Amino acid sequence: MTDRHSGLDRFYSVIPAGGVGSRLWPLSRADAPKFLHDLTGSGHTLLRDTWDRLAPLSGPNRIMVVTGRAHRAAVESQLPELKDPNVVLESEPKDSTAAIGLAAAILLNREPDVIIGSFAADHVIGDQPRFRRAVIEAVAAADAGYISLIGITPTEPAVGFGYIHYGDAMTIDGAPHAMMVDRFVEKPDLATAESYLADGRYLWNASMFISRADVLLAQLGEAEPELLAGLTRLAEAWDTPRRGAVVDQVWPGLKKIAIDYTVAEPAAVAGRTVVIPGDFAWDDVGDFASIAKLHSGGRKSDLAILGEGARVLADSSTGVVISQGKRLISLIGVTDIVVVDTDDALLVTTTHNAQRVKAVVDALKLSGRNDVL
Amino acid sequence: MTDRHSGLDRFYSVIPAGGVGSRLWPLSRADAPKFLHDLTGSGHTLLRDTWDRLAPLSGPNRIMVVTGRAHRAAVESQLPELKDPNVVLESEPKDSTAAIGLAAAILLNREPDVIIGSFAADHVIGDQPRFRRAVIEAVAAADAGYISLIGITPTEPAVGFGYIHYGDAMTIDGAPHAMMVDRFVEKPDLATAESYLADGRYLWNASMFISRADVLLAQLGEAEPELLAGLTRLAEAWDTPRRGAVVDQVWPGLKKIAIDYTVAEPAAVAGRTVVIPGDFAWDDVGDFASIAKLHSGGRKSDLAILGEGARVLADSSTGVVISQGKRLISLIGVTDIVVVDTDDALLVTTTHNAQRVKAVVDALKLSGRNDVL
Repeated sequence: MTDRHSGLDRFYSVIPAGGVGSRLWPLSRADAPKFLHDLTGSGHTLLRDTWDRLAPLSGPNRIMVVTGRAHRAAVESQLPELKDPNVVLESEPKDSTAAIGLAAAILLNREPDVIIGSFAADHVIGDQPRFRRAVIEAVAAADAGYISLIGITPTEPAVGFGYIHYGDAMTIDGAPHAMMVDRFVEKPDLATAESYLADGRYLWNASMFISRADVLLAQLGEAEPELLAGLTRLAEAWDTPRRGAVVDQVWPGLKKIAIDYTVAEPAAVAGRTVVIPGDFAWDDVGDFASIAKLHSGGRKSDLAILGEGARVLADSSTGVVISQGKRLISLIGVTDIVVVDTDDALLVTTTHNAQRVKAVVDALKLSGRNDVL
Repeated sequence: MTDRHSGLDRFYSVIPAGGVGSRLWPLSRADAPKFLHDLTGSGHTLLRDTWDRLAPLSGPNRIMVVTGRAHRAAVESQLPELKDPNVVLESEPKDSTAAIGLAAAILLNREPDVIIGSFAADHVIGDQPRFRRAVIEAVAAADAGYISLIGITPTEPAVGFGYIHYGDAMTIDGAPHAMMVDRFVEKPDLATAESYLADGRYLWNASMFISRADVLLAQLGEAEPELLAGLTRLAEAWDTPRRGAVVDQVWPGLKKIAIDYTVAEPAAVAGRTVVIPGDFAWDDVGDFASIAKLHSGGRKSDLAILGEGARVLADSSTGVVISQGKRLISLIGVTDIVVVDTDDALLVTTTHNAQRVKAVVDALKLSGRNDVL
């Protein structure tokens, strides 16, 4: 990367590594969240793949990971290059505004002109060069003062993602494809998703935010001044011996709210949000149907098998088997099946019911079965 | 039971406890065959239920069990009342003619006028008083010199059973419902099964043979004189110190053949076989579909759960779950599903594919996976 890419020398990657991934239970657990699994068969965890994707952009010394205290050891084992000042541990989860806002505030204290990009720890991206080109444009737009997003050009009428509707093309140096964001829309029903696909001006919201840290925090302060004040207090103490005391004091009171509502949407209303269309394969691997699709390459006739020691004997069966043990798994005449075989829990469902897995997790929570969550 | 039931005082029950039950893999195994499982939720194994059904007819001292050497300890643990002379151990399986024929020959040596009845160790019978009435009639017909069967009045066009077509009513003292057997037919296709049900003169062949031991062996001798000679040699040595030597010498050469072909069918052709229609619920519990049906009482909307420690969380799911462990099993939106969860093997299929389970077992045999068989 060279200086002809505006702002890239001041770019810092932030990886919020938080969510458990309830729809991937019993594979994903509180103590083994989604980002710590290899769901693509790459041989690496999603977190490691995310790191390897960002290192060429910001350099390995400029990647910050925000994660829960319980995951520190696992994260550091996955990312031996991760420097201690780049580990931000949350004492309890406070949603994405707190996670990304705190990273922005800490980095702003260290580098007043820093540009940060936040990328989920548990997404899958197919085409690295195209991803990098989109980020480079987004950084250029951020350098010009915008909150930049990367939106994915839809390839099907997906109902599991939010969408970004874009308006006019912008004229930003180094960001020739930047479009003004018109509005955000929540996960649609199928008919609506089909109309979005036909419309051509809707992109999947891939939760990739790129912005100058000062711009992001100023935007946040307009919507949530108290939350900004808390994050600022934390950041000021962060690189000092007072960190622990201030965390204990401030953290519990931080408002839990997604950054979409505190930054991206208000900025869009104010005409400060742009989106770079990303023309690459992307998935949030949100449920087992998504895993089945990732592994089958779209072929309906396939049975995807994940697991190092997986031993599967299948006859006339399609879907996905995820095995964490060495048991022999035999499938006969089951189509679009999902079998997740772990040490203490077994899930059997179908790809069509993949979104309903969360309800099981909720039921287990209600019945106090935290031992398997 | 009193003397007004002709022959019942000379009646001896024989329980061949042999078959593994391949269609019930991975529940049934070589070392844990079907008859050693509780498949009805009665709290007893099928073998124990069989014993308890026969004890009121022949008395507990007059029940002989023919089983494999490997199952001796398990059988004796299930049947503490079983006397040592009533245990016949097979050094290797030789099908039902050898098993039942040897029992007949041994008992004939001990009691020249004995009437034996052979009842599979792994069937389920719903109405004990009706079962007993049918056996009492069959014993009376056997006392009159016939090979007697009990056939089950069909309640549906089953394709998993063989059928007995009966002809004229007989006139036999103590067996008012005995009918002459016209012929045996193999498992039919659905259309044929429907025509059998409509015809009204077809009964399910429940593999219940009742006959004087001398009559059975004479009939066997007509079809298989060599096999009879071998069984006679074994029986003559059985209650002597020569048993072991003769078994070693004779057993390996015994012909493997089902008793249907050596006794029941030839006797029917010769007009010597009668059948007592049994108007009671019966099932051979041949596959997981049968287990699901047994437990649901025919209700399509049910999920049957078997297993002492079974912990199942099911949403919109029907079929059967059999659990041998303590793992949490979660089902979401799977209908007519079959899940069998054992320590080293997991089966996922549907009730419609229940008959195909045997093919998996065959594939495992071919690939040398005897560790899970």
